[in-house]
Amino acid sequence: MIEERQKALINSVLENDKEKIYEIIDNMYPIDIAILIEEFDDESLLKFYEQIDNELMAEIVEQASEELQVRIIKLFDFKSIVHLFSYMSNDDIADILGNLPIKMRKDLLKMMKTGDTKQLQELLGYAEDSAGGIMTTEYIALKGELSIGESLKKIKEIGPETEVIETIFVLSKDKELIGTADLRDILISDEDKKLVEIMNDNIISVNPEEDQEKVSLLVSKYDLKAIPVINHKNSLLGIITVDDIIDVIVEEQTEDILMMGGVSKEERVDSSLVTSVKKRLPWLFINLGTAFLAAFTVGLFEDVIAQVVALAAAMPIVAGMGGNAGTQTLSLVIRSIALGEVSLKKNWKLVFKEVGLGVINGAATGVITGIILYMKYDNPYLGIIIFAAMIGNLVIAGFFGFLIPLLLKVFGVDPALASAIFLTTATDVFGFFLFLGLAKMFLPYLL
Amino acid sequence: MIEERQKALINSVLENDKEKIYEIIDNMYPIDIAILIEEFDDESLLKFYEQIDNELMAEIVEQASEELQVRIIKLFDFKSIVHLFSYMSNDDIADILGNLPIKMRKDLLKMMKTGDTKQLQELLGYAEDSAGGIMTTEYIALKGELSIGESLKKIKEIGPETEVIETIFVLSKDKELIGTADLRDILISDEDKKLVEIMNDNIISVNPEEDQEKVSLLVSKYDLKAIPVINHKNSLLGIITVDDIIDVIVEEQTEDILMMGGVSKEERVDSSLVTSVKKRLPWLFINLGTAFLAAFTVGLFEDVIAQVVALAAAMPIVAGMGGNAGTQTLSLVIRSIALGEVSLKKNWKLVFKEVGLGVINGAATGVITGIILYMKYDNPYLGIIIFAAMIGNLVIAGFFGFLIPLLLKVFGVDPALASAIFLTTATDVFGFFLFLGLAKMFLPYLL
Repeated sequence: MIEERQKALINSVLENDKEKIYEIIDNMYPIDIAILIEEFDDESLLKFYEQIDNELMAEIVEQASEELQVRIIKLFDFKSIVHLFSYMSNDDIADILGNLPIKMRKDLLKMMKTGDTKQLQELLGYAEDSAGGIMTTEYIALKGELSIGESLKKIKEIGPETEVIETIFVLSKDKELIGTADLRDILISDEDKKLVEIMNDNIISVNPEEDQEKVSLLVSKYDLKAIPVINHKNSLLGIITVDDIIDVIVEEQTEDILMMGGVSKEERVDSSLVTSVKKRLPWLFINLGTAFLAAFTVGLFEDVIAQVVALAAAMPIVAGMGGNAGTQTLSLVIRSIALGEVSLKKNWKLVFKEVGLGVINGAATGVITGIILYMKYDNPYLGIIIFAAMIGNLVIAGFFGFLIPLLLKVFGVDPALASAIFLTTATDVFGFFLFLGLAKMFLPYLL
Repeated sequence: MIEERQKALINSVLENDKEKIYEIIDNMYPIDIAILIEEFDDESLLKFYEQIDNELMAEIVEQASEELQVRIIKLFDFKSIVHLFSYMSNDDIADILGNLPIKMRKDLLKMMKTGDTKQLQELLGYAEDSAGGIMTTEYIALKGELSIGESLKKIKEIGPETEVIETIFVLSKDKELIGTADLRDILISDEDKKLVEIMNDNIISVNPEEDQEKVSLLVSKYDLKAIPVINHKNSLLGIITVDDIIDVIVEEQTEDILMMGGVSKEERVDSSLVTSVKKRLPWLFINLGTAFLAAFTVGLFEDVIAQVVALAAAMPIVAGMGGNAGTQTLSLVIRSIALGEVSLKKNWKLVFKEVGLGVINGAATGVITGIILYMKYDNPYLGIIIFAAMIGNLVIAGFFGFLIPLLLKVFGVDPALASAIFLTTATDVFGFFLFLGLAKMFLPYLL
């Protein structure tokens, strides 16, 4: 279906058939058009641009993937780009500029209107994943002294050019942010009342340096439509809208899942083979290092294994179960950190619960494993040893599974980043060491 | 800080000191108050309720955790509850009722106003995680024939009682949904124009049975503030607001991360020890089964290991690296499925990329492993064997890591659910079998 549309569109574009192009994209949302032209070659892209109204083209570019945006900017002449930018909001322009080589960005900024340039420079100055990096400067802010009637008039004037209209930001005479007013309340209030009288002065706001993940937690907790970004003087710098917050939440979630799985957040299912190798191989090398650590631990006990080969078959059970139990704790803690529910300082006592859980779950799975090994190799001591090793390794799993992500967080590292590697290294090394060490101690009983 | 406030609040509540209570909760958001009273005992909860205005109490209950909601409903008498409900929107009431025992729910419904009851029954009829289950029936829908002036008047009238005001839904004479109008456009349009003239007739909507995850993908893709839910006759049944969508996105994400880690989505970091044991042990038993499968595979080669003990130390490397590489593919595919980017039907060819990746990454990590083993045990054949086994197991990892979640999806199972278990079973069993099997074939060269 999409492919058919794509073909039809390419044909019409190459034939410069404007009417047919509009027939195809009529009633389509800009993001769907952006997806459709994603795989156009340079020639088709240029020809497509020539046939399309600038305003629509601007909307399409706004919604396009980063790759397509950069391609388009590099392909089109600067004058066209600046013209397209005139239809976009400043935060979207800043996003696009942020992805360009610095020289190109500077050249483009030089060509733009001075007023815009200053705002853009400011927006570009904030880190990409900070509140300042995702805020927009297009909002409605009114003085608190205005009457409702005057406010409504202003809103009708400014409304068409702003991103958010349902929340009006209320300023003092000194331009400090003193409250927010819902458009709903403005609509239903007496025309003679003043804005300060109907505003909500309990403002939830963030600083421009605030991490975007924390901003998203606030918006989600308080069901906000937009959150103001203020500086230390309480001046309104910009706002972050709920649709950008959804993008942040989805982006941060993707990052967490991919990082936990040892994949770079930039990789996608359809990345090229070369990209995928480049992104994944470094992680595999790190894992290889830890695998050798585990192998080295086993190597210490080669003499024991040579005498009781059954140990070789049983040892992956101890290590594997430790890894599984630790991953359970790890997943829970990483998710709770992301939701802002848990921190080392506040909740360190919960580690005792995880340790207790390790004892119980270790005993429950260990007793079954012990009995099966006892029956298979007809040696009760082998059963007892694996029972003890399972409890020990599941305790270690709970301990590290709980503490590793919280400690990483304390040191300012993303808790999802290398948690799993640290954890399985611990459960592998300790698991092998405990099981084979116990076997060595009680070797006479196993022979 | 929170604890101090909590203590102060409890004291004021027990002393029935209304003034002091309001002093403490003044300027607090309902959700923060809900968090504060979360750990109140029954007596304090009841006393707190007696001192608080009903409207504020309703907002607090709305924002409270499920556990607290159920506690409050069971604690208060039915008349108070029904009174509190009168301040809430229908979707919130339906959410609360949905968590109650059926008998209690029916009794409560009987006591409510007949008009509300019908809507509530309808809302309760939809699955909790469907579009119908999360929609609200409080929105503004106007006939398209109305003029902008008349529309504005209606909006001012109905506005205070609805959840969403920035999007107005436009109906035909037959009450079919024919478009949406932004409040912004209504505000700035000529009073004499008709609603149909300024509305957007390209509607993105969902059916009530639609899965909430798919709904959230649509809202996120098209940056919607609210999405209409319609039946097959195109009648508007309700709308889903963006704040509820954020909740869905966060909930689904929590589910994915926890399920991938082998934890039940109902568990939390601070669940009781007993709850945690109950939730985690079943997963560990399943994992134990697969661990025995791996141990059994190793057991098949005990005679080989007895002759070349070095194999015991090296074999966890092959299995572990397979698990890691497979998890990379798995994480990427699970996330892409959640974002609606990939499906088996459309993208099955990508499995060849993953297989190719397995060959390259297997060769890269295998050659290092081979050289180290060769040097350590002074046997080139051991090096060659592990090189081959690594390639083989990373190919298997890519193959299964890609196909397992997509196949689960085809069969209607959540792809995050048991993917990791299936995958590591495959990489463990194949990894051990490949490495030890090759060792058995070339045993004479290893001695």
